[in-house]
Order: sequence, then C-alpha cells, then structure tokens
Amino acid sequence: MKGRKASESFIVMNELVLPNDTNIFGNLMGGRLMYWMDIAAGIACGKHCNAPSMTASVDNLSFKNPIKLGNIVHIEAQVTRAFNTSMEIHLKVWGEDSLHQYKYESNEAFFTFVALDPNGKPRSVEAVIPETEDEKKLYDGALRRRQLRLILAGKMKPDDAFELKSLFFPKAKMKTEK
Amino acid sequence: MKGRKASESFIVMNELVLPNDTNIFGNLMGGRLMYWMDIAAGIACGKHCNAPSMTASVDNLSFKNPIKLGNIVHIEAQVTRAFNTSMEIHLKVWGEDSLHQYKYESNEAFFTFVALDPNGKPRSVEAVIPETEDEKKLYDGALRRRQLRLILAGKMKPDDAFELKSLFFPKAKMKTEK
Amino acid sequence: MKGRKASESFIVMNELVLPNDTNIFGNLMGGRLMYWMDIAAGIACGKHCNAPSMTASVDNLSFKNPIKLGNIVHIEAQVTRAFNTSMEIHLKVWGEDSLHQYKYESNEAFFTFVALDPNGKPRSVEAVIPETEDEKKLYDGALRRRQLRLILAGKMKPDDAFELKSLFFPKAKMKTEK
Amino acid sequence: MKGRKASESFIVMNELVLPNDTNIFGNLMGGRLMYWMDIAAGIACGKHCNAPSMTASVDNLSFKNPIKLGNIVHIEAQVTRAFNTSMEIHLKVWGEDSLHQYKYESNEAFFTFVALDPNGKPRSVEAVIPETEDEKKLYDGALRRRQLRLILAGKMKPDDAFELKSLFFPKAKMKTEK
Amino acid sequence: MKGRKASESFIVMNELVLPNDTNIFGNLMGGRLMYWMDIAAGIACGKHCNAPSMTASVDNLSFKNPIKLGNIVHIEAQVTRAFNTSMEIHLKVWGEDSLHQYKYESNEAFFTFVALDPNGKPRSVEAVIPETEDEKKLYDGALRRRQLRLILAGKMKPDDAFELKSLFFPKAKMKTEK
Amino acid sequence: MKGRKASESFIVMNELVLPNDTNIFGNLMGGRLMYWMDIAAGIACGKHCNAPSMTASVDNLSFKNPIKLGNIVHIEAQVTRAFNTSMEIHLKVWGEDSLHQYKYESNEAFFTFVALDPNGKPRSVEAVIPETEDEKKLYDGALRRRQLRLILAGKMKPDDAFELKSLFFPKAKMKTEK
Repeated sequence: MKGRKASESFIVMNELVLPNDTNIFGNLMGGRLMYWMDIAAGIACGKHCNAPSMTASVDNLSFKNPIKLGNIVHIEAQVTRAFNTSMEIHLKVWGEDSLHQYKYESNEAFFTFVALDPNGKPRSVEAVIPETEDEKKLYDGALRRRQLRLILAGKMKPDDAFELKSLFFPKAKMKTEK
Repeated sequence: MKGRKASESFIVMNELVLPNDTNIFGNLMGGRLMYWMDIAAGIACGKHCNAPSMTASVDNLSFKNPIKLGNIVHIEAQVTRAFNTSMEIHLKVWGEDSLHQYKYESNEAFFTFVALDPNGKPRSVEAVIPETEDEKKLYDGALRRRQLRLILAGKMKPDDAFELKSLFFPKAKMKTEK
Repeated sequence: MKGRKASESFIVMNELVLPNDTNIFGNLMGGRLMYWMDIAAGIACGKHCNAPSMTASVDNLSFKNPIKLGNIVHIEAQVTRAFNTSMEIHLKVWGEDSLHQYKYESNEAFFTFVALDPNGKPRSVEAVIPETEDEKKLYDGALRRRQLRLILAGKMKPDDAFELKSLFFPKAKMKTEK
Repeated sequence: MKGRKASESFIVMNELVLPNDTNIFGNLMGGRLMYWMDIAAGIACGKHCNAPSMTASVDNLSFKNPIKLGNIVHIEAQVTRAFNTSMEIHLKVWGEDSLHQYKYESNEAFFTFVALDPNGKPRSVEAVIPETEDEKKLYDGALRRRQLRLILAGKMKPDDAFELKSLFFPKAKMKTEK
Repeated sequence: MKGRKASESFIVMNELVLPNDTNIFGNLMGGRLMYWMDIAAGIACGKHCNAPSMTASVDNLSFKNPIKLGNIVHIEAQVTRAFNTSMEIHLKVWGEDSLHQYKYESNEAFFTFVALDPNGKPRSVEAVIPETEDEKKLYDGALRRRQLRLILAGKMKPDDAFELKSLFFPKAKMKTEK
Repeated sequence: MKGRKASESFIVMNELVLPNDTNIFGNLMGGRLMYWMDIAAGIACGKHCNAPSMTASVDNLSFKNPIKLGNIVHIEAQVTRAFNTSMEIHLKVWGEDSLHQYKYESNEAFFTFVALDPNGKPRSVEAVIPETEDEKKLYDGALRRRQLRLILAGKMKPDDAFELKSLFFPKAKMKTEK
C-alpha cells in the first residue's frame, strides 16, 4: 500500500490558559479550545499532505472537564485517514495541573480538513498507512464517521450508510420498505 | 406551559475578519469562527437562563464557504430547547461581502451549554417556549439531536433512541435480535 | 429622491467583556469600546456605500455607565446622512448584565467615515433616505453636527454655521459687527 | 498656587502598526488608534493624580493622515487642567515612517478622565500648574472645551457658556430674547 | 541521588506563525518567539517543581534563520539542572515548512526560572537527575553558564568562576597579580 | 567621524500591564516584556538606519523586580554602536506604580539587530556617534559584548577576544600553552 504513515502527522501542542481565555469562573472557554484544536489539526494535516489545508467539518465534540486558568492545555493530533482531497484528524485534549501533578481528560474529537492547491482549490492527498492497533481502529472507524458526516450534511441517504448502520444498530437487521 | 420564549434569547453578532484571523489564502480559519460562535451561543444562553453557562458540546459542524479577509461574519444564535440544566443553541453563520453586496452561507450549528450556579455547579433552567413554525421544528428536532449526542458520547444505547431512529431510517422497520 | 434607505445600513454587534478589556476595577476600558464602535461604524458604512471606508472623525463622546467584566456590550450603528464622500454614523451602546436582566446605557456617538475607491482615494456615496421620525431627526441634525466638526477642525468660520447657531443659541438673535 | 506641574504628567508612547491593526489598504484603523490613545491618556492621569482613573469623554477627534502598516505611532499625552474629580488630557499623535525619515501628523485630541477612589467612586484631584506658554493656553482653553462638553451632553445651557461663546462667535454681540 | 529525572520536564510546543507575529518581510518577530519560548520554559519548570515559577534570566540568544509566515514554530524545552530555588531550562527551536518538508534550526537557548511558594517568594526545588549523555552534558554545563550569569549580573567575581574559565580559556594558565 | 548621533535613535515606550500579560501572581510574564523590548529595539534601529531590521541576538538578560498588573512598563532604547550590518541596542526597563509614585528597575539589556535591504538581505548601516559620557561607555563596551556574543555563538575563539579578556579577568596575565 502506497501512502504515508499515520504517525508521521502526529503533533503535540501545549498551551497555557491565560486570563483572557477564561470565563468568570476562571475556566477555559470552549471556543478558545476549539481555536487551538483547529490549529493543531491544521498542523497535522500539513505534515501529512505537504500542502495548505482548510477546516471542512468538526464532528460531535463534548467537553468533559473544565480546564482551569493557569493550567496547561495539552493537545495531540494525528491524521487517521484520507479520502481523496480530505483528511480526518483525531484530537485528544487534556488539562494539566502542574501544581497537583494532575492530568485530566478534556475531550476527544475528529476534525476534517481539505487539502488545497496553490489556487485554493481542493487537491488530492496521499493515503494514510495505519500501523498500530489504535491507528487501524481509527482508520476503520473513519469510514463510519464519514458516513455520519455526509448524512448529517444531507449529502448521503441513511440507507446507503452500511458501515454506519452497523455502528449504531449492531444487533438490528433492516428491511427497506418499498 | 411555563417558561421563556425562544425569541427572547435571540442575538446577533457581526465581526470583521482581520488579518490574524486568516490562513495564507486570506480565508477565515475555522477555529476563529468557532471561537466567535461559542461566544454568541454563550450570550444567547445568558439571555435565556440569566446565569453563567459553559460549553458542553458542539454538534457536527461543516463549513460551506470560506469567509474572506475584510468580509463580515454575521452570526445569529437562539436557544431552541432546554433539558433540565442544559440548553441547545441554534447558530446560523453567513459571510457578507459589502463591496459586492453578496451574502453567503458559511455554516449552521448546534451547541449545547450547561447553566451554572454561583459555585460553578449545573443548575436547572426554565423551559423554552417555541412560537414560530421554525422554532417549533427546532424544538422538536432538539430531542433527536440530543439522542445522537448521548449515543456519540457513549451515554445512550442506540436502541433506546426512538426519535433518532426515525430521523435516520424513516422508511425502515427494525427488528431487534434476541 | 435617489439613494439608499438609512435602515439598510443598520447593524448590531454584541461583544463579551473579557479580562483583557478591563481596568483594575473590572470595568471595560474606554479605548476598547471605541475600538468596537469603530468596527461597527465601518460595517454600517460598508452596507451603505458598498466600498471600503476609513474613520474620518469622532464627535464628542461621553461614557455614562461603566460596563462590567462578563457583561455584554451591545452596539447598534446606522448611517444617518451622506455628504458627498463622507457618511455620518449614529451609534448607540448599552451594557447588558444577563444575570440581573439589566440593560444600561453606556453612550451614544456620531462617527464620520470617508468612502474609498480601489486606490484609497475618497469616492462619492449615495444619499441616505431617512424614513422613520428618528431617522429624519438624525438626518436633519447631521448638518449641524457637520458644521460643528468643521468649525472645531478650523475648516469653517463660526459665522457661516447657520444651522449650528440655532442649535446652540436658539433664542438668540445675532448681529455681526463690521 | 498649590497643585502639580502639568509637565509631570507628560508621557510618550511608541507603537508599531502590525497587520491586525490595519484595514484592507494597510492603514491603521481609527479604533485601534483610539485604543492606544485611551491608554496613553490613562497613564498621564495616573501620573497626575496617583489614583486609578476612567475615561469620561472624548472630544471631537479628526484623523488627518492614515498611518501605514509597519510605521510607528507616536503618541504624546499630558494633563492640561483638573476640574474637581476630572482631568482633561491633551494628546498629539504622529505617524513615523523610519524608512523615509518622514513624520506626519495624525491627530490631536482631548480626553477627559475621572479619578477613582478604592471603591471606584470619583475622588478629587490636585490642580494642574501650567508653566510654558503652550501649557497655559491649553489650561485656559480647557474651560471652554468643558463648556462645550457639558452643552453637548445636555448638562449646561448654551447661554451659560460665556467662555465658549467668545470662542465660537468672537465678533458677535448677543442679545437674549425674553 | 534524590530528585526528579530531567526527561520528566520535557515538553513540546508547536505554534503557527500568523500575520500579526511577523514583520514586513513576513518573518516571525524575535520578541514573539521569545514570548512563546518563555511560556514553554515555564511549562517545563512547572512539570519539574510542581509550583508556579517566574522568569529570572535569559542567556545569550541568537536567531539563526527567520521563520516564515504560515510556517510552524517547534519548541522543545527541558529542565537541565536545579540550583536551590532556580531551574535552568534548555530550549531548542525549529521552523517547519510543511509544504517543502523542510525543518530548519532557529535557535537554542537557556532560560532560568525561580520557583515560587504560594506567597510569591522563592522556594526550593528538587534536584534534576540527568540520564542520557546529552542530559549529563547539559547538567555539567549548567554550572559554567550559571557562573557567567552571575558575573554578567555583577554578583560573582570573574576570578571565582573556575568552571567558566576553563570553558573560555581551556589552554590558558592564569596567574593572579597581587 | 561620519555617522549618526546615538541620541537620534532614542525612543521611549510606555505600556500598561493588562490581565493577559500576567501570571497567576498578577506579575508581568518575562516573555511579554521581551516582546515589548524587541519592538522598542526595532524602532530604535529604524531611527538609526532608516531601513527595516531583524532581531539577531539578545544578550544575557536578568529580571530584577516583577512588574505588577495595572502598573506601567517604561522602556527606553537607544542604539549604542553599529558593526557593518548590525546594530547593538541598549534597553532599560522600569516598572511604574502611579498609585504609590514608585518607579523600580526591572532590567537592562542589549539586543542586536541586523539591517535589511528591500530583498531582506543584510545591508550596511552608518556608524554611531556617541556624545555623552554614558554613550561613549556603551560604545566602548559594545566591542567586548560583541566578542562575548561571537564566542558564545561559537564564531570566535576565546583567545582572540582581547577586549573581553580584560573585562573578565582585568588583573590576570595570560600565558598560552603550546
């Protein structure tokens, strides 16, 4: 299989939560975190496709624990799979409280970026080669997540999303009415 | 029905796209837009619940047209429905090019916020009263979107998401295996 | 009368007061508010003249109530009248405290912008058509405010400012010495 | 005369115009300049009254020459006169183009700040002692500018503004009707 | 030897160079890079000492290759050695051009931070345990760099800096005059 | 001697310490201060050489007193000497607490910048003419500091740094072994 290893796009960001990043409880605002995640995702894409790229979509994203003022935001991003001109990026975010040596999960997310040629038009990217068990699982899941994205964007009929159906209703058999 | 009208939480934001908000093609970066959307959603929540609130989740979000440097980002946000301590906010985003009198859709999104008491703990919020046809549709859909959120966060079994199933597979009859 | 309706240039901005926008009492700094007002005024001008524009002057501006950290700054801007290449914009600013459902006046101001052609030189703009009573009052007052601006900038002799005189000294009759 | 010398409050700011401070012509935005002027005025006030202070008003302000990206904004601020709890500050702003050794006037302005006690309430400030010819002229003019501010804010009747009248209509004799 | 391993303090930052970070040639400004390096150094210190800390000094720092707009700044920081209440941090900075798959050295630096107790006073920190060859070399060199710092700050006489002398004048024998 | 007077490059910056510039003790972060110092140094260079310039190096820099939130950062910068295409800039930084009329030293530093031609390549600059005693002392010391920089950057052998040796070991006679 031709392509580039998933791990080659891996990047880490560490950011310090400053006063202007927080709400009145001194917790990192969700929007500020998404801003950083978007940059991390973009850097990972650049490493995979050696071209500029642009955010196409963000999958369902839920914030588990608030990250406090003065804590560190630790973001890891890696491309999971490429689909012609687009790449799916997996992000994991933790908060780190150095004083209490405490690291806590903030969220886990999937972003999709589109690679661009010098005129700003979509261009094709190399395939992703997953190597570890985790990378393979993320690679396989990328297909189902893509179907969900397409359905939610109204670009795919639910009936055509075979992989997704098995994710949602693994024990169900479906019969399409005429 | 006791509660507060959906329209009371309606707010508008207009932001100018400045150089630091853009990528090397002069297009607004997705993360910067999510930052503004998060603030707009928070303001709408404040109007509904008269309490501080915090981003809990962001639903699938896809970016349609890039917004150019010097263009205006027009964001409209309104609370669609409340679920005990959380509120779903519907956001619509356009780019506006004043020079060419051209207004183009950027994205449409659903954020969920949790209301907080003075100790930063979740507190209950009033119900939302939808009035227009659109508000009622958004109100009804909120239940299905919430089921999808819960499933994607691993907090609900797909089989229990009756409303969601009918959204995804409206023409399908399901038979659960034993 | 040829031109464009005043209301077509109307825009609303809502901004959240963040820590870096405030002084040591946690109140929004005047300069930060003027920064936002300037952007709001520029957006309104873009809507009226479909061209880039530039701040030419700001009329006397007084700040009534400080806006607190975490509160919302609500700005409304609308073009009142055009004078060849310049536009006068009327701005109204409120602070909003969602927790206490309290909205308080911050200031009211008049900015003047000049429309620019692609070479950055002043270009003429369409007339403004006022429709409501308020718009008509603002339209009429624009002439007097312009005279005051010109006098204060040393570009008009006080004696030539007929409309302004009647504003300042409505009950006075003036006799010019020879 | 008891008080503090005007020159003791003199301060200089030099700022570099960065991309995010500019419009699409690469010129400094008026609002960004007012942001800096407000900070300069506040620093001058702090030097005069040794207390925190807050922007109360900004007098008519007109922008003469646009300041270019990469140029220096040179701001000089000095308190001209104190009125019980408020201070008038005189600001002069130049643009500086180091490459062409060219310094150009941008604007000249008067801001008014109110001194605050530790509870954020207005507190009285020492008088200003003007020494040079320029300082004395600014000191005298401060009274007329204050009358104009009060009239424009609707807090003084034009007929009571004796000093202002002589500024505006030096050659006119006025006769008030009964 | 009691203490904490050098590698436990290792951190990586990746930042995207945005327009406002650059000069008129589109190159990252030195001050913006030092801002990021300072934050990276502070995060590494927090990991070592589990306390807040503050920049005490920055050693001679030279910038080799300019980092371009849109490129990535890659910073690695690790504590090399602790001296009672202070820590020396070694930083390495690269620019990364994803498009050309080109990574270039920007600079290498040593920062010193002081650990602070909850009152903001210096507090002692654990020793650093170097493990690899590189860590040991950095650990040993820290003593000489500290002597240079103390001499340059006027806190040590050159004659007392034995380790430093051997660094600077390895082949020289010195004879102190009486 | 042909050239430009040292004093012609003198500039002053005054900056207000805002919440986002501070750590959790409310003290200005070192990196933020270096950001401002770098801009001040760049402005001084522009005044001396009338060309754009770029940070080449920063000499040992130690922070004496933390500058508090709400205080003023007062920076003075002046070019001390030019070496073909580079300029050494001397910076002095104070904190100012207006409330307590207290001015305290923060640090003193030497930056080196390289002048650039329109293609971004180094270009020669005029000599610096020192006039006061202080300027002459800084001018003379610049040679030794330059030797230290070159040695620390590995570009000069310690044995060739005659001026530096006398700075470090003024009372020592050195005998080089064969």
